[in-house]
Amino acid sequence: MKLRELGEERLVAQLVARCKAGRKVIAGPGDDCAVVAGPGAGRLLLLKTDCVVEGIHFRSNESPLAIGWKAMARTLSDFAAMSGRPQFALVTLIAPAGREVRWTKEIYRGLRRVADRFAVAIVGGETSEIEGPAVVSISVVGTVEKDRWVSRDGGKAGDVLFVTGKLGGSIRRKHLNFIPRIDEARWLTARFRIHAMMDLSDGIGADLPRLAAASGVGFEVDLKALPRTRGCSVPQAINDGEDYELLFALSPNDAGSLEAKWRKKFPRLSLTRIGSLQRRSTGSKQQFGRGYVHFQ
Amino acid sequence: MKLRELGEERLVAQLVARCKAGRKVIAGPGDDCAVVAGPGAGRLLLLKTDCVVEGIHFRSNESPLAIGWKAMARTLSDFAAMSGRPQFALVTLIAPAGREVRWTKEIYRGLRRVADRFAVAIVGGETSEIEGPAVVSISVVGTVEKDRWVSRDGGKAGDVLFVTGKLGGSIRRKHLNFIPRIDEARWLTARFRIHAMMDLSDGIGADLPRLAAASGVGFEVDLKALPRTRGCSVPQAINDGEDYELLFALSPNDAGSLEAKWRKKFPRLSLTRIGSLQRRSTGSKQQFGRGYVHFQ
Repeated sequence: MKLRELGEERLVAQLVARCKAGRKVIAGPGDDCAVVAGPGAGRLLLLKTDCVVEGIHFRSNESPLAIGWKAMARTLSDFAAMSGRPQFALVTLIAPAGREVRWTKEIYRGLRRVADRFAVAIVGGETSEIEGPAVVSISVVGTVEKDRWVSRDGGKAGDVLFVTGKLGGSIRRKHLNFIPRIDEARWLTARFRIHAMMDLSDGIGADLPRLAAASGVGFEVDLKALPRTRGCSVPQAINDGEDYELLFALSPNDAGSLEAKWRKKFPRLSLTRIGSLQRRSTGSKQQFGRGYVHFQ
Repeated sequence: MKLRELGEERLVAQLVARCKAGRKVIAGPGDDCAVVAGPGAGRLLLLKTDCVVEGIHFRSNESPLAIGWKAMARTLSDFAAMSGRPQFALVTLIAPAGREVRWTKEIYRGLRRVADRFAVAIVGGETSEIEGPAVVSISVVGTVEKDRWVSRDGGKAGDVLFVTGKLGGSIRRKHLNFIPRIDEARWLTARFRIHAMMDLSDGIGADLPRLAAASGVGFEVDLKALPRTRGCSVPQAINDGEDYELLFALSPNDAGSLEAKWRKKFPRLSLTRIGSLQRRSTGSKQQFGRGYVHFQ
């Protein structure tokens, strides 16, 4: 069987199925970051790796500054999803020997711009040659307080679902200059009990079903309530992907208070109530499109 | 300027020059692993990423099991170089959509085989498509006791230089099935004050000058004493690269005791005194060939 027939999600599930987890591994493959016991008490270590590939995640003629930004920001977005603080980054830059040195320096300038903004230190840089497309792979290590880390699997029937920002149309511009929602996630978990959270990378049509499945519940979404990027249709908001906004669930008792405080704290970033989690038997699993699936 | 004109070492130096290090960064790019302050006292965090690229580090027709072994073992070898304990690994597997699923599973079997041997948990697995050669990128996080980490820069004039194992001829077989010298490095730093250490990845001809330069000293090597793989010439032992043996420096007062204890503890792995570090002014900087330099 070829990779394109299997699809990315099933491939990863099969590949990692036989990896032994130790007792220090709290969350392994399948959530936004891996969560492991750190050497100190009170804090957990978060680990995440992500890559962008020329011809797949970016085009050859795109600004290398923007490509660098995207590569680092994608990885930090997964820390936002868990309410983590990213701290240290390792960068692997793979490029053909005929590539201009200037191009690689612009990539790094983009990487540094995001890293500096979130106080992440780039502590290692590997390079390799390739006879083919360029690849930028970023691994980040950070921490989160034991009582503040949020996974995808804590959603409860009745929880209200929120998303930050607007969805859809990312390919026109936003996929190269989005802001990882780290500050917002940290603010949320300092004040509210967030039951489940993730960042929207493949589109809410693919990502919300994952959060619901991990939590063992169904969901209902008010399609008319979905916050859409100007000019985007509902299907585009659901399926385009690369929104890098936060999707999270919390108790309906907290929802009103959250909305009022959010408007004061983040007046320029919308927060939208889009629906709720439901018991599986009653939840009408709305057909949500498939988001973006790699290898297919 | 193109990458092939600049060369890997100068490229990395230029790329990371402008990366801000925080006060938690103890050793950044340029040593075998990055060393950062961990959340707990007494231990430091070690971070390392490394990759293998089809057509550069492995051939398409080579055993994927061996390729997986190599990808993980290369990274763990950098932990050995610092006397660290690797703990958690993130795996990024980039392959064309037409690649057989079986091939990727064999890669993972190779990765797991090394990881299990050294109690490393694979906690994250990313995959991506590429329209070109396959890439396996591995990032590993681990720890080392504050009083046991060894860098390249602590060598002193007069120190004796040792290497483990045999050098040269790796391409015939060893580059795909070598054993990271983690157990040996941990044993060494538990019993001796190792002044400087690294693993030999580009050949001692390229790597020893790096250790000497980092330590601010010169060196002398007895070429006849170099431990050679059967059938290898002295130039091959110096330049072939991918030995993944340890090179280290310690006080001449400790050398005799080390040799006696080593033979008892590791009777099947040779330990060879190959020369010494020297004051720069007196050290005849022997011409050592150039090892293997990427992008050139």
